[in-house]
Amino acid sequence: MTTPPQRGLTRYKLLPDALTSRRRNAACTWTGPNCARLKMRIVFFQPDIPQNLGASMRVAACFGAGLDIVEPCAFPLTDKKIRKAAMDYGAAIQPVRHASWHTYRQSAEGASGRLVLFTTRAATDLWEFSFQPGDRLLFGRESAGVPDDVHDAADCRVRIPIRAGMRSLNVTVSAGIALAEASRQLRATTSD
Amino acid sequence: MTTPPQRGLTRYKLLPDALTSRRRNAACTWTGPNCARLKMRIVFFQPDIPQNLGASMRVAACFGAGLDIVEPCAFPLTDKKIRKAAMDYGAAIQPVRHASWHTYRQSAEGASGRLVLFTTRAATDLWEFSFQPGDRLLFGRESAGVPDDVHDAADCRVRIPIRAGMRSLNVTVSAGIALAEASRQLRATTSD
Repeated sequence: MTTPPQRGLTRYKLLPDALTSRRRNAACTWTGPNCARLKMRIVFFQPDIPQNLGASMRVAACFGAGLDIVEPCAFPLTDKKIRKAAMDYGAAIQPVRHASWHTYRQSAEGASGRLVLFTTRAATDLWEFSFQPGDRLLFGRESAGVPDDVHDAADCRVRIPIRAGMRSLNVTVSAGIALAEASRQLRATTSD
Repeated sequence: MTTPPQRGLTRYKLLPDALTSRRRNAACTWTGPNCARLKMRIVFFQPDIPQNLGASMRVAACFGAGLDIVEPCAFPLTDKKIRKAAMDYGAAIQPVRHASWHTYRQSAEGASGRLVLFTTRAATDLWEFSFQPGDRLLFGRESAGVPDDVHDAADCRVRIPIRAGMRSLNVTVSAGIALAEASRQLRATTSD
């Protein structure tokens, strides 16, 4: 007995397919470096909450940013919660997986542009920071941020100003605020 | 046999308690109208995803904004997912429940300041919009936005610019971007 092909599952089948296959992005011209308006990339360092990764895929897709995932993650990249949070926006983005921080630093994605770390330990407020096209916006783990060597490797460190006494914003909200501010700053100087 | 008091449950016991009791906010001075730096309020119209409400409580707490919930919601306000997404930030905010859009419009919270609707159908981009202290930032349902009468009742309608072809940002991310931009604009003109 032959199992019929489960065509309905193809589109959102598994994240690893979304992460490795270039098929579904064939018609998605904006992922090319000449088409992404901001030419920016979001970099998630060892994400630990699958919903946040999925929701951040939606944010990156909405702003036309690329997305890098520095592994290991605290969850399998097959986790259904990623797909659920990404909704169908996951089909519009092609995250690039990196096995470690070291391999990310050696990769093409990690080789150009400034590395801008978002951290509550930064001295520069977001409102005082000037984005550049090609910046790579790095976000640490929801639970623990980034280790000191990653903190020190960043070219810039930026803090989103929040009310005293509050620990931090959710990492997906932080990514949205950062991309929105970059978009605001660069809209007049970057052509579509 | 007497059940010992479950003291550990008091702090995050149930959202309705958080929504109705003023006890836990006794030490939380910023919720008063003279203490919230922006004096802004987030207004959620009939929210339909409990995690978004919880995550938005965290966002509002981080930016020192008030929070109004216009019911009915598509989930019980006892939903554990709200508390989980709000984390302990839920203790730092005192959302106000309104039984309907009509009662919200009649309430003290709905009586002052401009009502600023965030919608993909707006003509004004966020970057062109000038916030004022006391603005009430209204967000519709994740699934369906707001009905036409609510759309028309807003004093201003604002769109967060996103890439063509993408439907919308998550409502919590939208609220974060809106509060961040308001905070950026007003930081120099509003005293702490």
